[in-house]
Amino acid sequence: MKTFNDQEIEQVYKMDEAIKDTYNTLNTLNEGLIKMEQRTVIPVEGDKVMLYMPCVDNKEKFSAVKIISIYPENAADGYPATQAVTVLTELEHGENVAVLSASYLTRLRTGAMTGIATDLLAKKDAKELGVIGTGGMAFEQALGVLEVRDIKTIRLYNRTLSKCDDFKTRLENFGVKADIKICEDVNELTRYSDIINTATNSTESVFDDKHVKDGAHINGLGSYMPEMREIHPGSIKRARHVIFDDVDGVIEEAGEFIHAVKVGDFKWEKAIGLNDALDQEFERDEKDITIFKSVGASYYDMSAAIGAYKKLV
Amino acid sequence: MKTFNDQEIEQVYKMDEAIKDTYNTLNTLNEGLIKMEQRTVIPVEGDKVMLYMPCVDNKEKFSAVKIISIYPENAADGYPATQAVTVLTELEHGENVAVLSASYLTRLRTGAMTGIATDLLAKKDAKELGVIGTGGMAFEQALGVLEVRDIKTIRLYNRTLSKCDDFKTRLENFGVKADIKICEDVNELTRYSDIINTATNSTESVFDDKHVKDGAHINGLGSYMPEMREIHPGSIKRARHVIFDDVDGVIEEAGEFIHAVKVGDFKWEKAIGLNDALDQEFERDEKDITIFKSVGASYYDMSAAIGAYKKLV
Repeated sequence: MKTFNDQEIEQVYKMDEAIKDTYNTLNTLNEGLIKMEQRTVIPVEGDKVMLYMPCVDNKEKFSAVKIISIYPENAADGYPATQAVTVLTELEHGENVAVLSASYLTRLRTGAMTGIATDLLAKKDAKELGVIGTGGMAFEQALGVLEVRDIKTIRLYNRTLSKCDDFKTRLENFGVKADIKICEDVNELTRYSDIINTATNSTESVFDDKHVKDGAHINGLGSYMPEMREIHPGSIKRARHVIFDDVDGVIEEAGEFIHAVKVGDFKWEKAIGLNDALDQEFERDEKDITIFKSVGASYYDMSAAIGAYKKLV
Repeated sequence: MKTFNDQEIEQVYKMDEAIKDTYNTLNTLNEGLIKMEQRTVIPVEGDKVMLYMPCVDNKEKFSAVKIISIYPENAADGYPATQAVTVLTELEHGENVAVLSASYLTRLRTGAMTGIATDLLAKKDAKELGVIGTGGMAFEQALGVLEVRDIKTIRLYNRTLSKCDDFKTRLENFGVKADIKICEDVNELTRYSDIINTATNSTESVFDDKHVKDGAHINGLGSYMPEMREIHPGSIKRARHVIFDDVDGVIEEAGEFIHAVKVGDFKWEKAIGLNDALDQEFERDEKDITIFKSVGASYYDMSAAIGAYKKLV
């Protein structure tokens, strides 16, 4: 049994490969060759939770289970709020072959699905990306967009403004050539952005639809619990196309959409799963806005873990 | 994240410790500090199956998930039919700390629970142990009995007689001092045995109750699927006390008991869970026979994994 840490994985497995693998996994899902069961949740104590997400890929011939601890108060003790590993089993003979740290892989697979959805929905000539929230998975979420559109300008906004500096440096060190601007006013960001990424822990909308540029595409990955909000209700209401990474998951977890359905601003039937969206054409007028909402699902984690493992061995 | 293989675990973690840890875990279960969810089963293809068994121990502050592949046809390719690992997460900060091979640990925890049940039910002066079926988990099942009773004679029976020689050698090499006899006739074994261990893949009874010694205690660990049989229906019918390792598990899986209930030879209410049996006195006349039936449960696997991990680090 092999073990791989984040550094080892990050060195060999990149966004372009993760996008290809995610695309292939979504096709495998459509072929009926991916089997999964609902994730298992075991409360530990207080608000601490253990999560287990198993999945089987009968095309790639691997199964994966992602084991996640969610400890919201961990930061006080210097630990991450979320810690995860994925165990891979090859399905030829059922041998448990590897355990991979799943921090980088979780961020990467989120960026990869964001890239696929952005490629389906965003204007072909989108040049300006706005990033609201610079923590957690925002970096790979941005990389996913950069992989599919020729972005010339990136605008950053964070409630704690100083964190934008770090994020800017990180993008530059990664080799991103776009012009990177830090915004003190989120309205300035949304006014210019063809693509808006949101990645926050907010419980209310993090921008105002009034100031969203015509024709913008929004990628939202915060609001992964019913009490959370991130995307503005006005944007949800007027979006021409909405793609969910996993329809069942979003219906169960995504706070701003659950709320929008409750108040009549949105109907679940309007959304389409990313797997069903592949290779479709999404017509849009110049002014239409579009949304991709993600909360994660076991087959995305499995896809990235298999992809990384194949590169590692 | 640390990984430990069977050899490393076997060197440091033995039956006496596993019995103590299992006993403590059953008490923790009774205190309401163990939380579990039903195991997740994902069929792969044909009769291949992936199993995931998660569990949380809020006293020891660990969670464990055992990941098991069941590949009945594996032997033809030189792989074991069952392969398993257990991933441990410490629950102070939710860090995934170790992945342990679970072959030896599964055998050991089965032996440990057998030891505890045998100590509760078997005659104090039991001196003769009979082992029916010498494959799989039979070795540690025998060690569990040897830990709690002063066994002077061990009788072995196996459908393939030559395998008894290997088993005898293995016991001797392990340092077992009892006199070890190989029986060509299973009736000879049961006629002398104060304790009968069964560990087979049989689909019919592997002994005849007519030839079971008065006052015998039977430990059955085969018959873990509804279509399997191992313990003779006559023994089930007349047993004075019956302990199950996990009542829900046995009701769902143990073929000979499911059948016995169906034909009216047994009532589920007659059995008691091992956790409820701890520290009880089980009165018995000289002639009464008793049964312990085990199919496994996630908290036994967790217990052994935590116990081994503490010795390893």
